Amino acid sequence: MSNDLRVCFVGDSFVAGVGDPEALGWCGRLAVDAHAAGLAPTAYNLGVRRQTSTDIAGRWQAECRHRLPREVQGRVVFSFGVNDTMLLDGRARVGAGTSVGNLREMLAGAHAESWQVLVVGPPPVDDAEHNSRTAGLDERFGRICAEHGVPYISSCHRLAADPAWMDQVRAGDGAHPAAAGYAAFAELLLPAWREWLGY
Amino acid sequence: MSNDLRVCFVGDSFVAGVGDPEALGWCGRLAVDAHAAGLAPTAYNLGVRRQTSTDIAGRWQAECRHRLPREVQGRVVFSFGVNDTMLLDGRARVGAGTSVGNLREMLAGAHAESWQVLVVGPPPVDDAEHNSRTAGLDERFGRICAEHGVPYISSCHRLAADPAWMDQVRAGDGAHPAAAGYAAFAELLLPAWREWLGY
Repeated sequence: MSNDLRVCFVGDSFVAGVGDPEALGWCGRLAVDAHAAGLAPTAYNLGVRRQTSTDIAGRWQAECRHRLPREVQGRVVFSFGVNDTMLLDGRARVGAGTSVGNLREMLAGAHAESWQVLVVGPPPVDDAEHNSRTAGLDERFGRICAEHGVPYISSCHRLAADPAWMDQVRAGDGAHPAAAGYAAFAELLLPAWREWLGY
Repeated sequence: MSNDLRVCFVGDSFVAGVGDPEALGWCGRLAVDAHAAGLAPTAYNLGVRRQTSTDIAGRWQAECRHRLPREVQGRVVFSFGVNDTMLLDGRARVGAGTSVGNLREMLAGAHAESWQVLVVGPPPVDDAEHNSRTAGLDERFGRICAEHGVPYISSCHRLAADPAWMDQVRAGDGAHPAAAGYAAFAELLLPAWREWLGY
């Protein structure tokens, strides 16, 4: 396996780190941790605001192919779902069955490209009913990843109980935290991230 | 004009911030500066390693369209050229005429989408002949941008004289600096960046 490690972070506004005045989000903080351990991965952030799993399904593979040529060790972190479970005219923007189908398709696509995958569950926002729908999706995402032998890190329950996340989400736009919230998210992910990269 | 400002940084490995253990590169540092001024732009980093202007021409518009919907204030920063002027089997990977044509096409494409553009010139590496070819391209890029009324910031001469950049490039892989080098690059760009965003 090549030592030239390149990781694409694919997902939504939380992946993009929207609201973080330090311009790192949780992805940047994971990259910094890997650098400190001497890994120096190339990190590509492919998070896009407002995108559902269906939006992401339509672009992720082309974008990752440009960034993960055959000769490198290409990996993909997926994280989405909050926009799927958001209501629009009284209905979820993407139904849970479709979200699950999109995740399955992405896992199959990444497997076909020989890209190792890590999946990060959708975080909570400042809306209990929205979070309850997200928790339902989180549970299904976890099951699918287990079936595929892909590591899945649930975030919605732990971040909902974390004042560093929730206080900043409430103080912000109701969905995105500032730096401390993203740092808490990264902290939660660190053990699985390190294990996934083997450091 | 919408206050929802979103900036795509389109280019090569220097845009991606390869080698920066702080995972910011010059783009992240510019985003941090705008946040500190209260602008809170959404910054999308679309730098890809090894890509020439021809590679970038083939993907930038689709990637930006996913990130800059009509209703936001979408902007694009372009920066490329070092991979164009790199020799492969004794010839530049992309000839200067083609590089210039690619830039013209991107400026026209961005104009058609109503995306305001800033162009950042290619930086120097640890290879005087390569830098001399890059300086030639830099001069032509500057002229084209002037013709189009687009701000252009040349970097190759100033960074070649900046030990913060050159020492780290030499200590690294011969092309990419670490944090201090990217900080020096960002510092050089700050006045034009602030003027471009009006803060």
